[in-house]
Amino acid sequence: MGEVKELDPQYLANGVLKGERRGIAKAITLVESSLEAHRRLAARMMEKLLPHTGKAVRLGITGVPGVGKSTFVENLGLFLVEKGLRVAVLAVDPSSSRSGGSILGDKTRMEQLAAHPSTFIRPSPSGRTLGGVAAKTRETLLVCEAAGFDVVLVETVGVGQSETSVATMVDFFLALMITGAGDELQGIKKGVLEVADAIAINKCDGDNVERAEKARLEFEIAMHIVTPESPSWRPPVLTCSSILKNGTQQVWETVLEHRRIMTQTGEFSLRRRRQALSWMWTLIDEGLKARFHQNSTIAGKIPEISAKVEQELISPSAAAEALLSFL
Amino acid sequence: MGEVKELDPQYLANGVLKGERRGIAKAITLVESSLEAHRRLAARMMEKLLPHTGKAVRLGITGVPGVGKSTFVENLGLFLVEKGLRVAVLAVDPSSSRSGGSILGDKTRMEQLAAHPSTFIRPSPSGRTLGGVAAKTRETLLVCEAAGFDVVLVETVGVGQSETSVATMVDFFLALMITGAGDELQGIKKGVLEVADAIAINKCDGDNVERAEKARLEFEIAMHIVTPESPSWRPPVLTCSSILKNGTQQVWETVLEHRRIMTQTGEFSLRRRRQALSWMWTLIDEGLKARFHQNSTIAGKIPEISAKVEQELISPSAAAEALLSFL
Repeated sequence: MGEVKELDPQYLANGVLKGERRGIAKAITLVESSLEAHRRLAARMMEKLLPHTGKAVRLGITGVPGVGKSTFVENLGLFLVEKGLRVAVLAVDPSSSRSGGSILGDKTRMEQLAAHPSTFIRPSPSGRTLGGVAAKTRETLLVCEAAGFDVVLVETVGVGQSETSVATMVDFFLALMITGAGDELQGIKKGVLEVADAIAINKCDGDNVERAEKARLEFEIAMHIVTPESPSWRPPVLTCSSILKNGTQQVWETVLEHRRIMTQTGEFSLRRRRQALSWMWTLIDEGLKARFHQNSTIAGKIPEISAKVEQELISPSAAAEALLSFL
Repeated sequence: MGEVKELDPQYLANGVLKGERRGIAKAITLVESSLEAHRRLAARMMEKLLPHTGKAVRLGITGVPGVGKSTFVENLGLFLVEKGLRVAVLAVDPSSSRSGGSILGDKTRMEQLAAHPSTFIRPSPSGRTLGGVAAKTRETLLVCEAAGFDVVLVETVGVGQSETSVATMVDFFLALMITGAGDELQGIKKGVLEVADAIAINKCDGDNVERAEKARLEFEIAMHIVTPESPSWRPPVLTCSSILKNGTQQVWETVLEHRRIMTQTGEFSLRRRRQALSWMWTLIDEGLKARFHQNSTIAGKIPEISAKVEQELISPSAAAEALLSFL
């Protein structure tokens, strides 16, 4: 990114708007950069792109490793490009910072989709905090939208709070599950039931059909207990199998049905407005915490004061006040 | 609190340690005060009390209005005092700030318990934020412990995040539920399944027995799906009725059984240490947010910038950076 012309925000935005693969990649690299100068430039580029965003179907997919997520995403991606749609696949995985990205770490499975001219696949950006990783993914999603992709799939392995974070940047959030070896369900994580717009029990094939069906019924009961996010949508529990190649179409039809109902009730644009605003507040919180931790006096006092709190020598309130007083 | 002697932290602490009702009430009033001088004094008094805390059974109870929570708490309280235990009842209810407290707003039901010499009942403190209300309740809990109460019941009506907040200050968190008029379950709220150490379906009597039993089975399945907080405890789903006067003893036995197991595995003290530390961080977050909102330049800019984010004229990241730059 050395040339002057390339550092012009309008020039960069134009590269995205033309849908050029190289221009999109360059814009995303800028968005992902931690350099102050790049961040300022990225912000100005994003301003130019924002009026061109908002048209894609934003679909989040979560599932722990082993649930068959990569295969599911590839199958769904291929299903969509065969329908003539342009598909971008992004990842949020704060654990992948060191390995340099999760999606393409799994190259063999994703390569058929990656090779397709109508797709764009981007691994998880690196970053120390989930907020940082998610912030970059959220802007990357907007870059992809401005570039004309019809569907943006955002996948997460569900480390820490990453599901909740992805759920707040998409229109539809799908939780993939599998049944375990025994009677236990695998892969359900805190808060996922409450943010899922649908659950799909994967690997519903062969010997596993009976267990998967039992799991589906159990999840239906659980979803019945949890108060749904929207009064107009009760999250369905589906089953799918990449061996039987079923489920993909049903998932996509569910996404479209959800979109139709949410648009009709006005909840679609409301959800997007709320997401943008709550995202701003999340970033403000992260920024405030970063300032606190970057204060060297505070950083030096935290271990001692934390230990005293754990030993019940000082109350948490007194400890919090003491640390805040150094700010 | 005008006299000099009364403003001495050791004198105030002694009043609490002697278990004098008047001394306890005075200490709590100090803890609840928002005046800077009172807060400093309260912090010094708490330092004197802290070595005398930690011995009570801290039991949190949540349930939406109509679930029969007051009657349940009164029955449980009377059951415990009849066993010779001293019982304090506190409330966390950020919505009650204006009405001046929830428990005693419901005087007729609680009066039998309130009249008992071995009990101490304190309504929800007032406060603008849940963090503020919960902070005061947490310190009040410690005051009651130092005063020698054997059991501290903390009840919440479950406004906003108050369940999660109460769950982080108690050893055992009980969620009370009832079945609705139809097939629907009433009263389950976001995240409650994940923080509950037990669920009790209340009003399991008369015509309602069949529905309550059905609800119990559904909750058992849901609890089976949710990953439990502790590997050594699977939260049970109980039923109870204040008409049949059952359930109270079973709930108490469950609390003691949980305590026995947690103590054996070492999770009991671990949970308390974690709670103290995470409480410190919650208060730090609240403090950072308060500083942000108290900045008049920022407060003036928030409406305009929020509106631009909602209209997608600026990105949430740019908005957050702009607001943080005024700090």
